[in-house]
Amino acid sequence: MSSSEQPDYAYRLAQLRARFDDAAIDGLLVSSRENVRYLLGFAGSSGWILVTRQDSVLITDSRYIEHARATIPVGRVHLNADGLPDTAAKLIAECQCAACGFEADNLTHSLAGKLRDKLNALKAKSALWPTERIVDCLRMTKDAGELRSIQQAAKLADGALEHVRTVLRPGMKEVEAAWEVEKWLREHGSEPIPFDVIAASGPNSALPHSEAGSRQLREGDPIVFDLGARVGGYCSDLSRTLFLGEPDPAVRQIYDVVLTAQRAALHGVKSGMSAVVADGIARTIIVDEGYGEYFGHGLGHGVGLAIHEFPTVSPRSAETLEETMVFTIEPGIYVPGVGGVRIEDTVVLRDGSAIALTCTDKDNPIVTIP
Amino acid sequence: MSSSEQPDYAYRLAQLRARFDDAAIDGLLVSSRENVRYLLGFAGSSGWILVTRQDSVLITDSRYIEHARATIPVGRVHLNADGLPDTAAKLIAECQCAACGFEADNLTHSLAGKLRDKLNALKAKSALWPTERIVDCLRMTKDAGELRSIQQAAKLADGALEHVRTVLRPGMKEVEAAWEVEKWLREHGSEPIPFDVIAASGPNSALPHSEAGSRQLREGDPIVFDLGARVGGYCSDLSRTLFLGEPDPAVRQIYDVVLTAQRAALHGVKSGMSAVVADGIARTIIVDEGYGEYFGHGLGHGVGLAIHEFPTVSPRSAETLEETMVFTIEPGIYVPGVGGVRIEDTVVLRDGSAIALTCTDKDNPIVTIP
Repeated sequence: MSSSEQPDYAYRLAQLRARFDDAAIDGLLVSSRENVRYLLGFAGSSGWILVTRQDSVLITDSRYIEHARATIPVGRVHLNADGLPDTAAKLIAECQCAACGFEADNLTHSLAGKLRDKLNALKAKSALWPTERIVDCLRMTKDAGELRSIQQAAKLADGALEHVRTVLRPGMKEVEAAWEVEKWLREHGSEPIPFDVIAASGPNSALPHSEAGSRQLREGDPIVFDLGARVGGYCSDLSRTLFLGEPDPAVRQIYDVVLTAQRAALHGVKSGMSAVVADGIARTIIVDEGYGEYFGHGLGHGVGLAIHEFPTVSPRSAETLEETMVFTIEPGIYVPGVGGVRIEDTVVLRDGSAIALTCTDKDNPIVTIP
Repeated sequence: MSSSEQPDYAYRLAQLRARFDDAAIDGLLVSSRENVRYLLGFAGSSGWILVTRQDSVLITDSRYIEHARATIPVGRVHLNADGLPDTAAKLIAECQCAACGFEADNLTHSLAGKLRDKLNALKAKSALWPTERIVDCLRMTKDAGELRSIQQAAKLADGALEHVRTVLRPGMKEVEAAWEVEKWLREHGSEPIPFDVIAASGPNSALPHSEAGSRQLREGDPIVFDLGARVGGYCSDLSRTLFLGEPDPAVRQIYDVVLTAQRAALHGVKSGMSAVVADGIARTIIVDEGYGEYFGHGLGHGVGLAIHEFPTVSPRSAETLEETMVFTIEPGIYVPGVGGVRIEDTVVLRDGSAIALTCTDKDNPIVTIP
């Protein structure tokens, strides 16, 4: 965490246990790396947690065990000596859970099978139950410490975007512009960034997830930047589309439509609104302007320990948007052969409305060529 | 790839199909990101390939479809409009595979279940078969283009280590030293690096996978650096332990044991040797010197498109080491309260023996304090 106070891990575990009845389980084997970090603050590359009604056990290997024993705030730490499935099965058998859930949307088919085989070999009385999204759903709403970290990460993203505006020149390669962003982020306090910086220029701007490549920027280019910082493990996500000098009028028109749609969504999204309705605020504007077929992705996604998490904000979402949820609002229009524009902010729902955590300029996308 | 020639994707697909009979399948749904990249060069974050005896179909979404259609060298590209499991199930049903494999060590339990449910709903005649490691095993041996990329990545790792030697000072934080490494790598041609640089100093050196933290370097510290570069998607992996001035004699002794073990393994590993025997070359020396309990990990791991891939080189490996395989040789001794040392090179087996691709100095670990 970015602040000195520690997250309330005991509360998080209690919240998880409060979901056990609904899921018809009396234990959960947590394997998702972000979920493990959320529940106990353990950030190693190999660690599972068995949470039962009375206990929690972090299982990790010899590379991490000393550090884990010294730092884990709640529960026990157990050495994984025989592989995670074998060790976890033994612990599940010992704790005598009747129905132990596992994270079916995280654990591979092979590992789930090994866990089941091992439990059978131990003649354990515990049944294994596939579950989905239990801890992920707890992670959707953020506490004060999480919000402080995301806010810091958002400020860093703003700063990096403002920096890169000052160094763009015709002839610069996309990868050079992307590196300017990353270097600024890291030298101003970001941990390793959550995803490779996108810098998609000219025709590449019409490819929503183009990697930064060796194309050189040209006068008049649109350049879609998509970037994020990480503070205390928590991410931010920001996109801006800049123009290197005066853009083609067709692309400028696209920019204005995307900005109108983005602002409408920012102002229109309310706590208690279904994510489908939120998506529709921006989508309706884009469809009405005749660009509906060129907005091929959802309006946004949750942001937290993972750069993409729940809630999803799309025409197919199941979630309702609630107070303290953090997510992106990022409409885009990508017309092959013409160009693409995406404008994205990370927002939090507070006092009923969306507050943008990223807030660097979007009214003046034109970068003057010196 | 680093060279201008393209990998022989048709050959790779043919090699995969040649494994179908042994696996009792007539199609394979490839979901692992590295395997997808290996087979078709597609590096997007969302893409599966259905490979049948006659055909290959890359399934990806609207974010990547234009780029994929323009660049995929073999087979068809299909838009994922309804989610990957639904789209894949339809294609499996259409191609009338009798037994379609899926990557059970990659696909989650949930996605495998959705795939199966959808195939049942379509009343498809295809049965789904869990498979493991089929493409991963093809990736173990490297072709000339892959070796060139790894060699370039190895040279970058050497350069970064040599750079950081020149900037270490008492008072510098671990994270600052780690950033010096990363910045050098990126500014000298590395793509985004495959894992966060480890810079573990003083007591942290005894934690094999300590993150770089805010600890400040002190005179006499051992500092374990573990770092890798990436070129054309391919990784390198290098560890060196440096001393900031004269080390504690106990740690210097550990250094000498690790170096002896590492050199013995480098010289002793031969093509055709089992990975267990290779691990034993270094382990025997460390055990004989009385440090066996402090060498808690395997001797090494394969390196390629993934930073950890097959072969594994450990007391529990199943693999035989063969010509053109690339892997690490990285013994380590970590004594809590005293300190830790790891020395690691990335090697390739050529003409029967291991050739170190990383080769920066290990005879002079002491960095003189200016």
